[in-house]
Amino acid sequence: MESDPRILRDLRARVAASPFHAGLGLRVDEARAGAVSLSLETAPEQRNLQGLVHGGVLATLADMAMGLAVRSAIEEGRRHVTIELGVHYLRPARPGRVSARGETVRVGSQVAFARAEIVDAGQRLLATATGTFVVTRELGGPDAQ
Amino acid sequence: MESDPRILRDLRARVAASPFHAGLGLRVDEARAGAVSLSLETAPEQRNLQGLVHGGVLATLADMAMGLAVRSAIEEGRRHVTIELGVHYLRPARPGRVSARGETVRVGSQVAFARAEIVDAGQRLLATATGTFVVTRELGGPDAQ
Amino acid sequence: MESDPRILRDLRARVAASPFHAGLGLRVDEARAGAVSLSLETAPEQRNLQGLVHGGVLATLADMAMGLAVRSAIEEGRRHVTIELGVHYLRPARPGRVSARGETVRVGSQVAFARAEIVDAGQRLLATATGTFVVTRELGGPDAQ
Amino acid sequence: MESDPRILRDLRARVAASPFHAGLGLRVDEARAGAVSLSLETAPEQRNLQGLVHGGVLATLADMAMGLAVRSAIEEGRRHVTIELGVHYLRPARPGRVSARGETVRVGSQVAFARAEIVDAGQRLLATATGTFVVTRELGGPDAQ
Repeated sequence: MESDPRILRDLRARVAASPFHAGLGLRVDEARAGAVSLSLETAPEQRNLQGLVHGGVLATLADMAMGLAVRSAIEEGRRHVTIELGVHYLRPARPGRVSARGETVRVGSQVAFARAEIVDAGQRLLATATGTFVVTRELGGPDAQ
Repeated sequence: MESDPRILRDLRARVAASPFHAGLGLRVDEARAGAVSLSLETAPEQRNLQGLVHGGVLATLADMAMGLAVRSAIEEGRRHVTIELGVHYLRPARPGRVSARGETVRVGSQVAFARAEIVDAGQRLLATATGTFVVTRELGGPDAQ
Repeated sequence: MESDPRILRDLRARVAASPFHAGLGLRVDEARAGAVSLSLETAPEQRNLQGLVHGGVLATLADMAMGLAVRSAIEEGRRHVTIELGVHYLRPARPGRVSARGETVRVGSQVAFARAEIVDAGQRLLATATGTFVVTRELGGPDAQ
Repeated sequence: MESDPRILRDLRARVAASPFHAGLGLRVDEARAGAVSLSLETAPEQRNLQGLVHGGVLATLADMAMGLAVRSAIEEGRRHVTIELGVHYLRPARPGRVSARGETVRVGSQVAFARAEIVDAGQRLLATATGTFVVTRELGGPDAQ
């Protein structure tokens, strides 16, 4: 995707300012209105007993990719809050870099819908996700950036 | 719930042995066959820009509560792998202790279904979740404990 | 559950007035603010090649039970619209009477969450469901009653 | 999509043989291994009080499109059963022809994943869906064709 430099800069600033996002080592690779690519290098402490990346890390990454895609598609003053997140786990995620591409499916006046795909370094599809967001002018909600 | 001491001990040992689970500060509070209560004290680095607990942390906690509930309901040698996770975010999660109760809805020969509820220290319901698991004798999968 | 006669009467009138609801043979068995029990006798034309009730019929029934539960919990002039529906199919549904109990999980100013369980005549759990609804004063949406 | 004549013929025969599928007026428009396009003309009795197509009809159509896509991707003797269905309703569905395109996302040895999109006659996206299926050699389950 061809990135929009203003959106890319804005999302990178948000990620840098959020302790949770920055702490994950999240990188915003590409961004334009309604579509965002993120990646992170999974850390040893994100693995389970079998040495695989925990599904919660992938769920978090998918939520971020979709949330930032919604963010990039709405006006400055508005807020987005995840109200519903669904993830399908297709394959075990071995340690290494994982990337998520999130995109909006529809952005309405009150509600936005998005989807995401997560792939490993070899572009194997690890997980797919869908999300529903309330888009509002007010503050609040668990995932508002 | 009245805990089964053997199951409680087994799940605590698993959590202690998994870098991801232990790193979250996850505590297994109660456990019996098919039902598990977990909690964690959310850390500053799990918060977003508004100081709220990120939805990914709650998704992770819900997945763990459901996965361990399935774990507690199947025989020793079998494996469980999350194939589908759905979370509804009902209220913003303010910093502090959050608890999840996971329980199995049905454990079949190939597939198990579970649900979870997450509450804050004041017992306010923050999120609900559902999960689908493949139950197998083979190794593998993103969330197998 | 103990029904609220006014709510029961209101929902029965709505079901009778809707071609789709009435055509299914839907019966409102119980209703109070935030909880509704529905049932229907599955017809031969609702079965698939193996003679089992099609999952789409159960999804429809779950959506109706949750939608009417939301309906019973909001004021007269407001509308509810399903924006998200999730169903887990636990067991095959053999022909006969199926019942759904829907209840609200949280009704907010913009969004409502609900869940439902579907059982057969022997009270075996066939399916569970969750739903997200936009609650508005305006007309519209695919499932508004 | 370019159809595979053998698969198209097989799916049309299945739809014709199933009382539920045939009763809906379901038409198989295109089909190849892993992808299926269906459509139906919504009937007056599929509408709710506002004259919109009920969300249950769209959920049913999405389940069928995904189920037949899985069917077209597995060997003759195997069975598929829907275990999880998720639908997002993006826009109200006005009366008229609706089409669903279902496709497999991953078909494993035990589990298959699929997604679907539903559009109206003007190609407006009305709903998106995801599904999880158990794929087995044994008979049974609510949606096995």
